[in-house]
Amino acid sequence: MALKRPKSLLRRPKNTKTVNQIPGTMTYVGTKDSGETKLDVIDYNLQQYERFTSTSTEDAFKFVDEERITWFNIDGLSNVKEIEKLGEYYELHPLVMEDIVNTGQRPKVEEYEDYLFIVAKMLYYKNGSIENEHISMIVGKNYLLTFQESDGDVFDPVRERLETGKGRIRGRSADYLMFALLDSIIDNYFLVIDDISDRIEEMEASLFINKPNDNVTQEIQDLKQTILRIRRSVFPLREVVSRLEKMDTRLIEDSTINYIRDLHDHIIQISEHIDIYREMIWGLMDLYMTTISNKMNEVMKVLTIMASIFIPLTFIAGIYGMNFEYIPELQWKYSYFVLWGVMIIIFLLMLYYFKRKKWL
Amino acid sequence: MALKRPKSLLRRPKNTKTVNQIPGTMTYVGTKDSGETKLDVIDYNLQQYERFTSTSTEDAFKFVDEERITWFNIDGLSNVKEIEKLGEYYELHPLVMEDIVNTGQRPKVEEYEDYLFIVAKMLYYKNGSIENEHISMIVGKNYLLTFQESDGDVFDPVRERLETGKGRIRGRSADYLMFALLDSIIDNYFLVIDDISDRIEEMEASLFINKPNDNVTQEIQDLKQTILRIRRSVFPLREVVSRLEKMDTRLIEDSTINYIRDLHDHIIQISEHIDIYREMIWGLMDLYMTTISNKMNEVMKVLTIMASIFIPLTFIAGIYGMNFEYIPELQWKYSYFVLWGVMIIIFLLMLYYFKRKKWL
Amino acid sequence: MALKRPKSLLRRPKNTKTVNQIPGTMTYVGTKDSGETKLDVIDYNLQQYERFTSTSTEDAFKFVDEERITWFNIDGLSNVKEIEKLGEYYELHPLVMEDIVNTGQRPKVEEYEDYLFIVAKMLYYKNGSIENEHISMIVGKNYLLTFQESDGDVFDPVRERLETGKGRIRGRSADYLMFALLDSIIDNYFLVIDDISDRIEEMEASLFINKPNDNVTQEIQDLKQTILRIRRSVFPLREVVSRLEKMDTRLIEDSTINYIRDLHDHIIQISEHIDIYREMIWGLMDLYMTTISNKMNEVMKVLTIMASIFIPLTFIAGIYGMNFEYIPELQWKYSYFVLWGVMIIIFLLMLYYFKRKKWL
Amino acid sequence: MALKRPKSLLRRPKNTKTVNQIPGTMTYVGTKDSGETKLDVIDYNLQQYERFTSTSTEDAFKFVDEERITWFNIDGLSNVKEIEKLGEYYELHPLVMEDIVNTGQRPKVEEYEDYLFIVAKMLYYKNGSIENEHISMIVGKNYLLTFQESDGDVFDPVRERLETGKGRIRGRSADYLMFALLDSIIDNYFLVIDDISDRIEEMEASLFINKPNDNVTQEIQDLKQTILRIRRSVFPLREVVSRLEKMDTRLIEDSTINYIRDLHDHIIQISEHIDIYREMIWGLMDLYMTTISNKMNEVMKVLTIMASIFIPLTFIAGIYGMNFEYIPELQWKYSYFVLWGVMIIIFLLMLYYFKRKKWL
Amino acid sequence: MALKRPKSLLRRPKNTKTVNQIPGTMTYVGTKDSGETKLDVIDYNLQQYERFTSTSTEDAFKFVDEERITWFNIDGLSNVKEIEKLGEYYELHPLVMEDIVNTGQRPKVEEYEDYLFIVAKMLYYKNGSIENEHISMIVGKNYLLTFQESDGDVFDPVRERLETGKGRIRGRSADYLMFALLDSIIDNYFLVIDDISDRIEEMEASLFINKPNDNVTQEIQDLKQTILRIRRSVFPLREVVSRLEKMDTRLIEDSTINYIRDLHDHIIQISEHIDIYREMIWGLMDLYMTTISNKMNEVMKVLTIMASIFIPLTFIAGIYGMNFEYIPELQWKYSYFVLWGVMIIIFLLMLYYFKRKKWL
Repeated sequence: MALKRPKSLLRRPKNTKTVNQIPGTMTYVGTKDSGETKLDVIDYNLQQYERFTSTSTEDAFKFVDEERITWFNIDGLSNVKEIEKLGEYYELHPLVMEDIVNTGQRPKVEEYEDYLFIVAKMLYYKNGSIENEHISMIVGKNYLLTFQESDGDVFDPVRERLETGKGRIRGRSADYLMFALLDSIIDNYFLVIDDISDRIEEMEASLFINKPNDNVTQEIQDLKQTILRIRRSVFPLREVVSRLEKMDTRLIEDSTINYIRDLHDHIIQISEHIDIYREMIWGLMDLYMTTISNKMNEVMKVLTIMASIFIPLTFIAGIYGMNFEYIPELQWKYSYFVLWGVMIIIFLLMLYYFKRKKWL
Repeated sequence: MALKRPKSLLRRPKNTKTVNQIPGTMTYVGTKDSGETKLDVIDYNLQQYERFTSTSTEDAFKFVDEERITWFNIDGLSNVKEIEKLGEYYELHPLVMEDIVNTGQRPKVEEYEDYLFIVAKMLYYKNGSIENEHISMIVGKNYLLTFQESDGDVFDPVRERLETGKGRIRGRSADYLMFALLDSIIDNYFLVIDDISDRIEEMEASLFINKPNDNVTQEIQDLKQTILRIRRSVFPLREVVSRLEKMDTRLIEDSTINYIRDLHDHIIQISEHIDIYREMIWGLMDLYMTTISNKMNEVMKVLTIMASIFIPLTFIAGIYGMNFEYIPELQWKYSYFVLWGVMIIIFLLMLYYFKRKKWL
Repeated sequence: MALKRPKSLLRRPKNTKTVNQIPGTMTYVGTKDSGETKLDVIDYNLQQYERFTSTSTEDAFKFVDEERITWFNIDGLSNVKEIEKLGEYYELHPLVMEDIVNTGQRPKVEEYEDYLFIVAKMLYYKNGSIENEHISMIVGKNYLLTFQESDGDVFDPVRERLETGKGRIRGRSADYLMFALLDSIIDNYFLVIDDISDRIEEMEASLFINKPNDNVTQEIQDLKQTILRIRRSVFPLREVVSRLEKMDTRLIEDSTINYIRDLHDHIIQISEHIDIYREMIWGLMDLYMTTISNKMNEVMKVLTIMASIFIPLTFIAGIYGMNFEYIPELQWKYSYFVLWGVMIIIFLLMLYYFKRKKWL
Repeated sequence: MALKRPKSLLRRPKNTKTVNQIPGTMTYVGTKDSGETKLDVIDYNLQQYERFTSTSTEDAFKFVDEERITWFNIDGLSNVKEIEKLGEYYELHPLVMEDIVNTGQRPKVEEYEDYLFIVAKMLYYKNGSIENEHISMIVGKNYLLTFQESDGDVFDPVRERLETGKGRIRGRSADYLMFALLDSIIDNYFLVIDDISDRIEEMEASLFINKPNDNVTQEIQDLKQTILRIRRSVFPLREVVSRLEKMDTRLIEDSTINYIRDLHDHIIQISEHIDIYREMIWGLMDLYMTTISNKMNEVMKVLTIMASIFIPLTFIAGIYGMNFEYIPELQWKYSYFVLWGVMIIIFLLMLYYFKRKKWL
Repeated sequence: MALKRPKSLLRRPKNTKTVNQIPGTMTYVGTKDSGETKLDVIDYNLQQYERFTSTSTEDAFKFVDEERITWFNIDGLSNVKEIEKLGEYYELHPLVMEDIVNTGQRPKVEEYEDYLFIVAKMLYYKNGSIENEHISMIVGKNYLLTFQESDGDVFDPVRERLETGKGRIRGRSADYLMFALLDSIIDNYFLVIDDISDRIEEMEASLFINKPNDNVTQEIQDLKQTILRIRRSVFPLREVVSRLEKMDTRLIEDSTINYIRDLHDHIIQISEHIDIYREMIWGLMDLYMTTISNKMNEVMKVLTIMASIFIPLTFIAGIYGMNFEYIPELQWKYSYFVLWGVMIIIFLLMLYYFKRKKWL
């Protein structure tokens, strides 16, 4: 497997864009924008379902109907004009507007008079790398606005349920739709951490057989960063969900609370996994260190065995290479063969010695 | 001992099954299911005891008697139909139904109008490896439902006490049965952590004598994972028991509270052990590193001793192997023997030197 | 010093004995029992003092006198019969009875109608190794029961004060006796941690001079375990004392509260020392690693110096051992001596080089 | 990039100056002071804007006008006389006066009858190194005092907005100005942590390719210190902002609270980044250790390969250098060539062996 | 700099002295006592100032005057008789008396009916090593008692201010004097941690240049212990000051609270520095490990270069030292010189190879 560093996840957009600007100014700081803003409006109740796509906010407003739930989904945040129109229509606070396009904003929930403002992070796979996308939701009495950085999201199963009318979703109000979307987001976290789990196991396996590939440190470092950033996207959401569960607002119906509690269970489950994986990843570095040390041990053993066997033998050969006039052994006819015998015996004893030490 | 990685404990079932499904849908995500669902009904009071086994829920309902406590035990979670019937009979909430079959759910307790819903994890030994089984309990006025993933559990001693009427159990209500079952589950945790303790000691012993077997890192890594996962099964249960102790509900009688407090003591005891073992396991890696380093030291010492002794001797032999026309020593008759003497002295001095350095 | 692993401290009794037994059953799980139970009764007030030793509970009851404070001390927990009689006499709760003999129980305090139940751990030296003994106290209106695993404890100074009437003790009620006993227990912790401190210093000293003995890892590991287990015995007691201080009960007189606050100071002092020693012990492993590395450095230096000096010299000797027909130097009369000079110069330069590098 | 240790950030001024002085004494302990104090007064409301620079406080007071907001900015803290005059004019508490010039003071907010006292730290780049400057603010009904250590700050964008009247700032009261200044300070933290992030990545890149430069430990150590000190400047400010958000004072208008909440979001965002970078920096040391070990492995491999190949060959050559009278091979005509063949084969086998072991 | 282990700081007095003694018994357990007790009485109000030194408590009592503040300072704690007299005169609780002489007592504050009891630790330099001295204060209506272990303290600046009447001190009551003394104690902590900071930097510098002296581990270990013990003396005092700030007692005047809040700022500042230095010290060990590894790398490189160059050359020389009858090269006249050329070329190629690898 070729491990690619999922750039979009790790790279935090530089903050130079927003530094020193006037508070309340809308500036898109992300890197995912294609330039144009697309509106996708779904208007439904138990009986009816309508879907409409446009690039103009005015067109969309015509569809709004008090009797039905309206879900505005906006893809693309750089065209702040259109978003401002929507903001004015629904009377959003300037700081909310700013946070919608500020992709550096961490997950949070804020309660306003007529709506809830929720910020979350979508994590999903796109072309084999993890996408980390900023998403904001405005939950009103009978409308829901979602703002995404770019095309492509994790909400298709919800759209399908809305269209086909499967499950409870069409019969309930906007807060249940909010729950369904958050549920989709959190479900996708499971997929991402499953992948982390796989990568950790792969690394472990390659380290256990003492055959790490060359960029093992890079991969471990990459895993570390990935888990730290995922953690940063997920952990504040835990608090968001917990606050939604306890929030005393007429915008969330009692019957939805049970479902939000279920969300809470899921996000805690994910948090626990993240913490376990984090510990395992930190342990990988130790594992790698022992692997390196084991390999060095192996290298040293080869050297020691070769040197220990042949250095003494060479010494013996050196002895009989001396030019003293009187060396008695030199004259004897079988000396050479006896010496070979001696050397072979030394050789075998050495082998036996190293064998017993388990170095061979 | 051949250490096997207890797969069922470590493997978290992949989440792909439940991702994007409609909330409230019952999907069994575990790996232990044999396909069929078995019902085991025990109906008792102080005077009477009846036991009945079936695969059909309808048959079982006939046995229910308001005057007696009924314990329904269901083995096998994949046949959601039968479980649904039970759920309808006792009017369980859809999300409770979902959690009963969702083996990824962490331990928790939830209070409903007519019943308590408790999720826990059984850890027990089966064929030499640790089984981690999801178990849910519904505690009602005079009934108790338990849902297990598969055949085989840790409740046999409770069943025996019910049958023989030993102890207090037959004379008390359903909450005491709940306590007895939780007590059995927690008692079995003790066995599992005893085993962890044994494995740590074995590892330590093998590391102390500098003779680790080859897969020592693998075993340490396995211990790490095992303790992390056990921790994940045990720690939330601590909170569950603590909440049961403080819960203000008519479903738990005052006289049972003392017993639940006892449970709480036990689970805290286990938590402490887990934390101690965790620290010990993390320390094993350091221990292993010193073992490797000590072995390398030993290898290096052999090399250094061999080289330090024979390289100078070989040099001396080399000197008298030179072909200069005039080397006075060569002509002298006893040179060879004197040289041997010199070399033996050098050899002994070297040995003495290394002996004093404690390298030998 | 021969370090022995204080087995009784480290070994947790296996839990197999209590697993699956009926809650409220008394089963002694420790390893210290000699088989028989001994009663030691001290009956006193400001004017009177009587002491009586027996093995039968009935004999002891005769001594009880409402006007005086009675301290029952029971050594040996395996003979549950006698303990049960005592329990019935003072109307103790079955779970209290169970905890008295369950040596795995962690320190705790429980308030009952007529008595307080306190569990603690005595740590003291016996035959050179640390004993960890389970002790339970029942503090009533004018009686105090203490249950120990075996003969020998830390209470002799208290007994002496009772006998001689030194200090305030004879003039006060049972809660002050309880304080005096807890004070004795905690005082003995100081002795144990003093010993830990000594062992750490000894280890450090041996590591600083780079002369660790062979079982240094074993000793560090043993220290780690010892401090973790001591911690486990001491830390919960901190909470016990803190609760005693704040407890609103007629069993503890106001004038005793000040003394308990003093206990609290002491136990916090011990906790702080334990935490400091813990950090120091964890640091010992790093210290040992640097010691090993330093030794390896030394070994490598010897090898490098020997090889670097003699390998080039041997090469030079090899040159003039060649059999070429025409090597001009060979014929010259003083070549051999000049060569010796050259080799000695090389040798000295090498020495100088290594000296300057501080390798010698 | 030449990494310089940003001295001003790391160096804490020695405390010798303030030790043992009378509490309430004003002593400037910083190192940045140029000796003279400069006053910069901006007086504005929605309609008017005036700016005045002076070195005399008396001159400045003439400009104060109850109808307008007055922002006094003082650069240079060593001239305590001028600061005292200001303090007397606005009736500041002696301890506030002391803290204004005590650059060791950590960020805090204190509420007084007529004003808020805020201490913060500016972090900004000046000549390529991070400056850490102590800044105090006094927020009154319609005035704001800022005290800085030296010339140069991060407030120019705010001054521009005041001058040009862009945004809301001119139409609001002093508390909004306070928010704008804190916002500027926090915005600049983003720039500093962006730089930390860059340096970490650079280090990682150089470690991944196993080509660390020589002062890598120094740079890591420097990063550690930098992040610890930044943390120390930033984390207390989080608490300051949080307290401002919740403070019940007539000095902060309700409409400003939303903006302060926004500040809070930003400072938490920065804190999270700091914690992530901290973990990454601590990981760099491990990374470096593996790099060193890998390099040593490489060195050892070269040695082992060279020695393993040539030591046996030299031994063979040594054999036929012996002077025994009867060595059959010596007489044979092709021995020399056959021997070369044998040696070349040994050489190739060795190469193959090391190739297969992946050492080449 | 010759680093000495500051014994008095690190050595905790053994607890054997106080173990098993009757609670409320006064036993001095420190090591600093010179045997005699000295009283230093300062009696003052705004108009008057008197100072009197004695060794008898009775003499001192004559000086007490209700109209003035009296500061009793007692040096030397072993003469418990004199201290007892003072205790009786001011009606101190027996446990307070015990804590005054128990130098193991951690910093705390206790509120009694007529006085506050404060325990703190003085850290100051004496003869180049850190002294850690136990100090207790009794703060009454118009008197202050301070008990020190030995001669010499950090209060001289306060005494001077009392004598000369500088600052507010003479015009205020005993609680301000208490503040002034605590302020002196805390000011001296700054000096101690400045010194720690210097020692860390020195260590870092010596490790960066890879030239650690031999006892570097010892010094690091000493720094570790020192910071842990300082921490233990300082951190509880933080709580003491915080409680003083919030304490509702007529013994502390409102106007003093502001000053105590200032103390609180200072002690938090010190705590932060201690935590930073602690992390830096723990990092030193890692730094040292890399230094050792780097040195070993260097040693190995020298060995590898020497061996890699000369072993092949020696082999070549060995070839032509063989005694085969037919070696064609031997006869050729210029062989010897050609061979030298070949060997020099090999030598240069090797040098070039190692140069390119950056090993030279």
